[in-house]
This record gives sequence, C-alpha cells and structure tokens, in this order.
Amino acid sequence: MKALTYHGPGRRTWGDVPDPVIQDAEDAIVRVDAVTICGTDLHILKGDVPEVTDGRVLGHEAVGTVVQTGAAVRTLKEGDRVLVSCISACGRCAYCRTATYGQCTGGGGWILGHLIDGTQAEYVRTPFADNSLHRLPAGVSDETALLLADILPTSYEVGVRKGQVEPGDTVAVVGAGPIGLAAITTARLYSPARIIAVDLAPSRLDAAKRAGADIALTSAEATEEAVRALSRDGRGVDVAIEAVGVPETFELCTRVVRPGGRVANVGVHGKPATLHLEDLWIRDVTITTGLVDTSSTPLLLDMVAAGRLDVSELVTHRFGLDEMQEAYDVFADAGANGALKVALFRT
Amino acid sequence: MKALTYHGPGRRTWGDVPDPVIQDAEDAIVRVDAVTICGTDLHILKGDVPEVTDGRVLGHEAVGTVVQTGAAVRTLKEGDRVLVSCISACGRCAYCRTATYGQCTGGGGWILGHLIDGTQAEYVRTPFADNSLHRLPAGVSDETALLLADILPTSYEVGVRKGQVEPGDTVAVVGAGPIGLAAITTARLYSPARIIAVDLAPSRLDAAKRAGADIALTSAEATEEAVRALSRDGRGVDVAIEAVGVPETFELCTRVVRPGGRVANVGVHGKPATLHLEDLWIRDVTITTGLVDTSSTPLLLDMVAAGRLDVSELVTHRFGLDEMQEAYDVFADAGANGALKVALFRT
Amino acid sequence: MKALTYHGPGRRTWGDVPDPVIQDAEDAIVRVDAVTICGTDLHILKGDVPEVTDGRVLGHEAVGTVVQTGAAVRTLKEGDRVLVSCISACGRCAYCRTATYGQCTGGGGWILGHLIDGTQAEYVRTPFADNSLHRLPAGVSDETALLLADILPTSYEVGVRKGQVEPGDTVAVVGAGPIGLAAITTARLYSPARIIAVDLAPSRLDAAKRAGADIALTSAEATEEAVRALSRDGRGVDVAIEAVGVPETFELCTRVVRPGGRVANVGVHGKPATLHLEDLWIRDVTITTGLVDTSSTPLLLDMVAAGRLDVSELVTHRFGLDEMQEAYDVFADAGANGALKVALFRT
Amino acid sequence: MKALTYHGPGRRTWGDVPDPVIQDAEDAIVRVDAVTICGTDLHILKGDVPEVTDGRVLGHEAVGTVVQTGAAVRTLKEGDRVLVSCISACGRCAYCRTATYGQCTGGGGWILGHLIDGTQAEYVRTPFADNSLHRLPAGVSDETALLLADILPTSYEVGVRKGQVEPGDTVAVVGAGPIGLAAITTARLYSPARIIAVDLAPSRLDAAKRAGADIALTSAEATEEAVRALSRDGRGVDVAIEAVGVPETFELCTRVVRPGGRVANVGVHGKPATLHLEDLWIRDVTITTGLVDTSSTPLLLDMVAAGRLDVSELVTHRFGLDEMQEAYDVFADAGANGALKVALFRT
Repeated sequence: MKALTYHGPGRRTWGDVPDPVIQDAEDAIVRVDAVTICGTDLHILKGDVPEVTDGRVLGHEAVGTVVQTGAAVRTLKEGDRVLVSCISACGRCAYCRTATYGQCTGGGGWILGHLIDGTQAEYVRTPFADNSLHRLPAGVSDETALLLADILPTSYEVGVRKGQVEPGDTVAVVGAGPIGLAAITTARLYSPARIIAVDLAPSRLDAAKRAGADIALTSAEATEEAVRALSRDGRGVDVAIEAVGVPETFELCTRVVRPGGRVANVGVHGKPATLHLEDLWIRDVTITTGLVDTSSTPLLLDMVAAGRLDVSELVTHRFGLDEMQEAYDVFADAGANGALKVALFRT
Repeated sequence: MKALTYHGPGRRTWGDVPDPVIQDAEDAIVRVDAVTICGTDLHILKGDVPEVTDGRVLGHEAVGTVVQTGAAVRTLKEGDRVLVSCISACGRCAYCRTATYGQCTGGGGWILGHLIDGTQAEYVRTPFADNSLHRLPAGVSDETALLLADILPTSYEVGVRKGQVEPGDTVAVVGAGPIGLAAITTARLYSPARIIAVDLAPSRLDAAKRAGADIALTSAEATEEAVRALSRDGRGVDVAIEAVGVPETFELCTRVVRPGGRVANVGVHGKPATLHLEDLWIRDVTITTGLVDTSSTPLLLDMVAAGRLDVSELVTHRFGLDEMQEAYDVFADAGANGALKVALFRT
Repeated sequence: MKALTYHGPGRRTWGDVPDPVIQDAEDAIVRVDAVTICGTDLHILKGDVPEVTDGRVLGHEAVGTVVQTGAAVRTLKEGDRVLVSCISACGRCAYCRTATYGQCTGGGGWILGHLIDGTQAEYVRTPFADNSLHRLPAGVSDETALLLADILPTSYEVGVRKGQVEPGDTVAVVGAGPIGLAAITTARLYSPARIIAVDLAPSRLDAAKRAGADIALTSAEATEEAVRALSRDGRGVDVAIEAVGVPETFELCTRVVRPGGRVANVGVHGKPATLHLEDLWIRDVTITTGLVDTSSTPLLLDMVAAGRLDVSELVTHRFGLDEMQEAYDVFADAGANGALKVALFRT
Repeated sequence: MKALTYHGPGRRTWGDVPDPVIQDAEDAIVRVDAVTICGTDLHILKGDVPEVTDGRVLGHEAVGTVVQTGAAVRTLKEGDRVLVSCISACGRCAYCRTATYGQCTGGGGWILGHLIDGTQAEYVRTPFADNSLHRLPAGVSDETALLLADILPTSYEVGVRKGQVEPGDTVAVVGAGPIGLAAITTARLYSPARIIAVDLAPSRLDAAKRAGADIALTSAEATEEAVRALSRDGRGVDVAIEAVGVPETFELCTRVVRPGGRVANVGVHGKPATLHLEDLWIRDVTITTGLVDTSSTPLLLDMVAAGRLDVSELVTHRFGLDEMQEAYDVFADAGANGALKVALFRT
C-alpha cells in the first residue's frame, strides 16, 4: 500500500510499504477513508520526537472502515465505519480503569504514528480495537468525524474541562489555530459570559469570532491590563486556555488569570517556561497540563450528530490521499495560506 | 501598651504604642493571651514586603479575650475567649461569599500585621470580628489554639485539600518546618498509604517521623529516582506538597509527581521557578497555589478539641510576652536551636 | 402604606398597614417597584404553612429602590435599585459561610412573607441587607429582574446544578409551570443533548418548547417506556427534574432515570412519596432536594444583563400594584387563563 | 467437582456438578481456596431473586488460584493467586469506561452465583478475567482477602464514598452486621469526628465499638432526638449510612440527617420505603443508592497489605469447604450464634 513515512529530520516519503497485518487478537485493520495532519507530525519531521524511528508511517487521526478483526475483538466487525482515535487504550491498566487512556501503561496511549505505524496510509493496524475505535453514527460525515480523532477531544478535555469552564465565566483562549478554535467552540457548551481570543494573525482572529469568541485581540493588544479590563470587576479571567505551546503565551495566561482562576495548558511545549511564583504563590491559581484521553469522544460524537457542535470551519483545504505531500506542504506553511486543518480522502 | 513594631529592614522595637480603639462598628478589641511569630514576619523584617510601613505592629496569629466590641458585632461579647485568625473576612464580597476569605476584596484578607496593626502586642483591634474571630471551646489550650491561627489551616487547605490527598495515596512533603509538619499531620486525616518527608535538617526529619511521615529523606537523598522508587509502581507520588518556598524544592515536586498527580504549593516564594513544560505538557499534572482562607478553622478546632489532631510537638520554645525580642532571636535562628514554633504568653 | 395581608386560610386583604421601620442596624427599607406572586403564597393562603400568622404581609420576591439603611449597612445606599432576594442571609452562621443561605441558622433563610412581613406592599423591611439585596445593573428591566428573586435561582440551583446537568445529557423536566420552564432555560446553559418536558397542559408544553425543550409529552404520553425510549440507548434519562410537587411526578422521575442518573426535586411537597427501594437500591441513583440559596443570583444577573438568558416569556400578566387582588385571582386560576408569572408594578 | 447448588426456594444441595470449562477467550478457571456466604445468598434461597435458576452454583466471593486462562487473557497466568470480585466487567461498555462496573451492560456486573455459576464450589469460571480478577500481594491472607471480594468495597464505595464522609463529620451507621462494621472501618479512613452505630443486637454494638464506632445505640435508643443530640449543634448527622435494608432503618436515616447532609443506602431492600418529601423537600438532602463497582478494590488491597485497614474481627466462623451446609446453617442463624462472616477453606 501507499503510506507517508518518516526518514529522519526533514525527510518524508510517500511510497509503497507492506500492508499491515493482524499481530494481536485485539487488533483491527482499518481502511483509511479520510485522514488529516497534526501539528505534532510537523514536530516529528523537525526531529523533536526522537522515539519516532526511520520508516515509521506517520499520522494518528483517521476515519475508516474495518476490513479485518483479530480473534478477541468483540464489538466491531468488518464493514463498520469507525473513527480511529489518536489514543489507544489497553482497557486493563490502572490509568485505563479511570478513563485516563492517554496515560495507558498497558501498551496504549499515543502510539499511532509514534511508536507504531500510523494512519497516513491506505490501511492502518489499530491495537486494542474495542477500546480505541468508535463506530460512527450515520449522519456524521467523514470530514466532520475526522475532527473528533484528536482536535476536538483535546480542546474539550485538556482545555475546557481541566479549565473547569462554568456558566458566566470569562475565558481567554490564547492561540486561535485549530486547537484554539476548537477550544472556543467547546467552551461554549458551558455558556461562558465572554470568550476572549488572542492570536498573532488577524485571519485567525476572524475565524475565532466566527467560532464564537466575543472579543478578538492581537498579541500586541493582549496586554495583561487589556485582558483584565475585559473581565468581571477587572480581576482577571476565570479560565485561561493556552493553545500555542511557547513560554510567552503560557506566561501571559498566568498573568491574566484572576485569583482563584484556572490556567489550562493545551499547547505542546518544546522548552521550559518561567513560573512567577513570587506573584502566584498567594493567588489561588490552578495550572493544569494534559494529554487527551479521548474519553469524551462518544459525547462529542453525539453532540456533532445532533447538530449541537458546529465544526464546519475547521477544515480549510481538501486533498486526495495520494496528494499527501502537497497537503503537508500546505499545512506546514499554514501562516502563508490560511490553513487550519487539511483533510485527505480516499479516492 | 507594649508592642513589637517595624521600622524598616532589620529594625524592630518592643516598646510603648497607643492602645487600639474601635474604629468601625464591626471591630472588636482583643487582649492578647498568646501569640506567635511567623516566617512571614521574618520576611517583613528583611524588607521583602514593602506594603508594611514604619511603625506597624507585626503579627497575625493570636489567642485572646474580647474586651470591647463595636456596635454591629453580633456573635461575640466581652470576655469571650477567641482565636484571632490570620485572615479577616468582610463577609460580603464575591470571594467571601464562596468562603475564599484569603482573597477578600472588601477590606479583609491578610491585613493584620501587614496593612493594619497586628497581634504582637498586649491588645489588637480586629476588623470584621464576627467573621474573623473564632470562639474557643473550653478544652483547647492557648498553645494548641495558637497553631490554628495560621499554620494548621494553611497546611490543610493549601497543601492537603488543594493537593486532594485521598486514602491510599503516596504523598511527598518537601520541607519539614512547621508548615511541612502540619501538612504531614493533616494529610493523615485522609489516610494516605505513605508519606515521604524531605528536608535538609536531620532534626526536622526526626520531627517529621514523629508527626507521621513513613519515610524521611534528606534533600541529598531525595532524587527524582529515589522518590519515584518509593511510589506505587514507581510512577511517582500522587501528591507533592511544597513547604519551603524556593525554586529547587518546587521543581523537585514537579519532577516526582506521577502522571495525573497534584503539586500543591504552600511555600512563600520570593523568586520565579522554572516550569519544565517540555516534560509536563503531556503528563496530566495539576499545580495549585494559594493563600489560606481559614475556612477550615471551625473543623480543625473541632478535631483538636476531640483529640483527633495531635499538634503538641510544634511549639518548641515558650516565652513571656515581654520577651518578644528574645523570641524573635530564637525563631530567626531556628536552624541553630531547633526551633519550630515559638509561643509567647501574657504573664 | 398598602399591603396584602393574610388572615387565616382563604382570607387575604389589600389594605392599610403601618410603614416598615428599621429595626436592626443591618436592615434596609426598600420601596417596592415590582413584585410577583409565588405558588408558595397560594399554599400559605390554603393554610398549609402554619408558621404564617394573622396579619402577615405576604410575598418574598421584589425589585425596588432603597429608601433607608441601618447604621451597619455598608454596601448599599439610598436610591440604589435592588433585587430583593427570597432568601435573607446572616452571613455569619456555618451555613452562610458555605453559601448555603437557604439553611441560615442566624435569623435568615426564607423569612420574608413567612416569618416577617414581605414584599407584596409599597415598602418592605429587608434584614441583613448587605447579604440579601443585589444591586441591579442598568440594562436589566424590573420585570426581568423580578424573575431572579426566586424562580430562576431555584430552578438553576436546586434543579440544574444539584441535578448536575452536563453537556450531552438527556434531561427530563417534569412540570412545565414557571419553575419547570426556568429549569429548561437554565439547563440549556450546560448544552444537554435533549430536554424532554412533561406536563398535563398542552399550553404549557407549547411554552416548554419555546423555552427550549426538544420534546414535549403530556403526562399520559410520558410513560416510563416512552421516556426511556427517548434516552441514549434506552437506558433512561441522565437527569430528571421534578417541578410539580406531588408524589406521582416524583415517582415518575425515579422510574425514568438511568442507572447512575440524578433526580433533582424542586417541587414543594405536601405529602410523602413512595420510594421504590426494592428497584432503586441496585441502580446507583442520586436523589436531591433543596431550598434555593440564591448563591447563583449574581451569576444569573450577569447572564441576563449580557442577553444570554431569555426569560421574556415567563411573565404572562401585568398589573398595577393596587390591582393585587385581581392579580391573585388570575394567578390562582392559572389553569384557566394560561398564567405563568404575574407581575405588579408601582404606578 | 463439589458445589453448592440452588434448587428452588429453601432447597440447597452440596454435591457433584461438572467441572467448569473455558467458554470464552477472556475466561479464566480459578481453583477456590477460600469462599464465603453473603446475605444475598440467603435472599436467593428465600426465592427473592427469581433470575436464579434451578441448579445454579451460588456464591460471588472467593480467593483462589488461576488454573487455566482463555486465549485472550493477557495479565493473568496459571498459578496466580487472585481475588474473585463479586462484579465482572466487560471493560468496553459505557459504564465500564467510567469505572461503573456494577452497571456493566456488556455481559458483566453481578453475574457470579446469579446469572452464571458462582464460587461456592471447588472451581469457578470467571468471565472477563483481566478486568474482574485481582492478583493478590503476598502479605495478604486468604481470609483477609476474602473480605475484599464484596463487603469492603461495597461499604466503602456505596456507603462511605457516595456518602462523601469528610474529616470532622458526624456519621451514623444504621446496622452493625458485616456491611455496617465494614462501613465503620472504612469511614475512619476519612477521620470523621464521631461515628454513631445503631443496631438491634448488643453483641453487634460491641463489635461496632471495636471497629471504631464512638457511640453505640440500640434501635430503641436511636430516636431522632437522641441521634441529633449527638451531632454538631444538634442539627443532625452529616452522613447516614443505611446498612440493613428495611424501610424503618432507611426512614430513620432520612430523619436524623442534617440539612445539607447525605443518606447513603447500602442495604438490599425487598420493599418500598416512605419518603417524607413534605419534610425533606426544603432540607437540601442527598440520597444515594448503589451496587458496588469494585473500582476501589486495588486501593483497599493496598491498604490491607500496608496494615492500614484492620478487618480481623469480621470473620467469626471458619469451616472446610466440604462443610458448606453447616456454614450455611450457622450463617443463616447469625442472630443466635453471633456470626458475622463465615469463611470456608479448601482442605
């Protein structure tokens, strides 16, 4: 089959690799009908994720069709249309037993396109299929479902839920890329009074407003004073969601949050930040980090199927599966071409 | 009356000042029967807290007797034996209405010995008396009650509760001074499986073991590997409580906590720490900071009165009130003389 | 002044009574600009609430203007436009300190129009004014604010929050009178997937649909099977909110709730219900009851002011204050004339 | 092999039945080393549980040794010493994914000795072995482990945790049989201020005191007034745990609980109770029911292994496995012979 493989920093190939086969009784083989590229894939290509070895098929998000199941797979069968979650779950370890699948110690967690071959291919082997694939309701399109493989549950679980967004809250979302936009969309499920979006790019701020932000500030405008001035009584925001992954944006979050507020980090960071404990020790602040568990995926699927979550603006570019290299080029240069998520479809 | 007053960095005086008088209908005047010195008082004397002005009477912890009440005081009367809490509460602001008294925006919070005259004196004026003083049950001694003015609720609320200690948890308490020891004592209310105490001083580690620590490590011994090795499955501790207030100990806490665990900062910090988000972003860690609210004081008083909390080892040195300067000298040199808390009594 | 007074079962008078005067330093006198009638007032008139004595001025909901304040009132002054909450809060007792104002043991709780004279008058004395009145933002009309005196916080706190409505939930609201309609409106703040309204009256079911119910069933249609069939996988609803106050509707709630679900009772009951523990013991059900605390009133005021809560359909009939008797007649015969809430305004 | 089988109301047989065999790839066969009898088994023998069919091997609690595993069993192997949990968990359904194993809709839940053959036999087939058996640490005896198959997690999860016992609480435990005693023992993990035990039998009240109850009342003594008088400020208990299963004891719980308190029902009920909503609607009471999930079993095993939970008094009578009929006779007449739990061991 065709697949996108990694060959060291900066080197990716779209070419022939062997078809995946069932290796374990709990595996399923899924034909990929739609796939996307994640910011994390770009990190891998920069060489930032040394566990990814030469020849690895990348990708951890897909929608597809089950073509084969291992002997122990119980809830899925050939022909089922499924969402391939970015997180696999052994279902047996202490973390899986508390629905913390992202931290699975039994062989799951984030493995696809990382420790085993991933989804940017015509077929993918998915371990622990019963606990890692989600059957799709009829009314949800491939393109919409694709956004539930990683980006929506990540924003919702790691940003909105860990940030404990409540009705009436003022919420700052710092970063209006795909994760930030999805955080705005899912934060609205809890009816905050006001969402303030911050980004460098005016085009992303426009998208933030369409996604439901009440106020959009450029990074230059988003001083501590300006953000606080937009909060109740000027005390600071109730929740600040970091959706970029650099020290400056994280530190902005810790400065604009009110006493008693929450900072929910969603961004993938490559270097340390400074934590101003000399100011924060007295301020009753809660800071959270996290990898998605995809425990909310069934809920989000229901919400999307019921028309209660509109994610139609997140996919900006569409390709055929064999246009993988072009899709990477577009996505890697998102700033220049306004790309949010790219989607590739089996043709 | 006599009082301990601040006169710029390094300068404290024990001498005559005017008696306090009722200034507001919600005030009470309390005769000080017992008082202690806090590490924060030493910070003030170093000049670290610039809001403290020349001539200020220091001190924010005391046990005493009400001698006069303002016209609007409703639940207290002359002769009542009371605990003077380190936190005053207006009872009306949005923070007070959610029992977050430490963040009071209506004129309370930490004001005694900070923004108004404090408790290291023969008498003290206490604003918002109904909401800021606690009547003492008969069976609780002055010395024991004194520990509930700040140190026990701080450890319990900011360390144990924000850290969400649960039965069966492995808990690291970094720092075995008075706050750390009180954290060990109050953590045991939730029956953790194992408490690991860390400190530089062997004498404090001995005290930690008497307070209920299962394992005591010197700072040199407490490497990331060593602490993790003592946790369930070697994953790291469930809760790490920072009770020192320097970057190194905070950073140790973030390294030894397990995925999904909590770091509860209790220490008072004077400079920033480094937050290794490049490691932590993926690890589902929750970090909390906080000033005490003293919302748990009634509960802790009940527990002490019922003999369910033993805090008898925390006071190591006792003085008469007019030995204030000697008490400061001893407390300021705690390392040399093994002091934990000093207590001064009206004679 | 004129007031509506109670004189034993079935006997109410609109006539002259003495003007209220400040009795306590924390009192305020409020001129009533708008007032409403509660179902509880009808209970009192039936003689169901024996603590209400002869001559009592009824009413516990109003919007008005402060005309006088006691010496200890700190945050309000003459001329302030305020919401008179149905709950008064001493601010000092153990319940008030945890924002459980409805259970105040310091002289507050539900006292207006119950244990002391109430709001169905030209003026009302309000104890503990700082903690019991809410200053109104400019953009909120008297009529809208009136709905926040009791009905909205009751539905939200006792129904939606105790019921723990979450995004994606299926929620049954049994009873589509004012409380049920407000429960539907405030439940939507948490984005449930589906709200099922149940009532005897088709006109109320129409109102329920306009308030946001997805499905409206008559009581005859709302069999256990029918309601379950509308829930996810047919297991039963996640949350059932009882908003009537009779055994049959409460028991329906306990039958239609799924294992692990919540039954939140909001209705005022006059007789016992049967609890089928022989079925329920094994089903992981949580049942809650409660009196409103009005702790959510500031939040709800913000939401209304921001246009995020539409309650415009709840007031169906408007009167002048001196048409009090006609208003009672209309409200008491709500079934016949389609009344939800009646509002009376100073003329 | 030998087994205890049910043959209609009142008829039980100890005799030969076929050895169990692997039926599903996730099954394990366990040799029973120790087993006990539950009150529920007596209910079955009375005919109260009609799903139990003729010839069924009873019993849902055991300690044993794995002798065979199905092809899909991953974490267990022949020779492993295991706890057989009363609850089996498919690990895949929506309930299992939130650790609500008791409500498993994928073929698990309470099935042993109920819907499939159980543990009162020389061997037992255990479905979903990876998720339903617990490997035992070396230091825990068979007798101690046996108490963790049902009784300890039931008391802890359904009584203590659903009742939300907190430090300083006053807790009433109504019923001092095995479940009530285990509730007392596990409630102490949260350091309540006072535990009040209630039972008909003085011998059980003595056991309650040894288990940690501060006060023991006979049912005659335990009037509403007497229990309230023992609570803080006479308001009522914070938590009432029902551990009998008859209407009278449940109703006592609802009468003695304070406003804002919790009633946690653990008892197995055969008929309805009366819920006095005419009193309770206004009192902010939370009532919970539940079947054990055994999600706390790993925690409780750790606590027992660490010597932090003493359950040594719960087993009062010991037998060989082939003395099953005598053991049933003793247990069924517990009142006369002071039996709490009986334990039977392979000889």
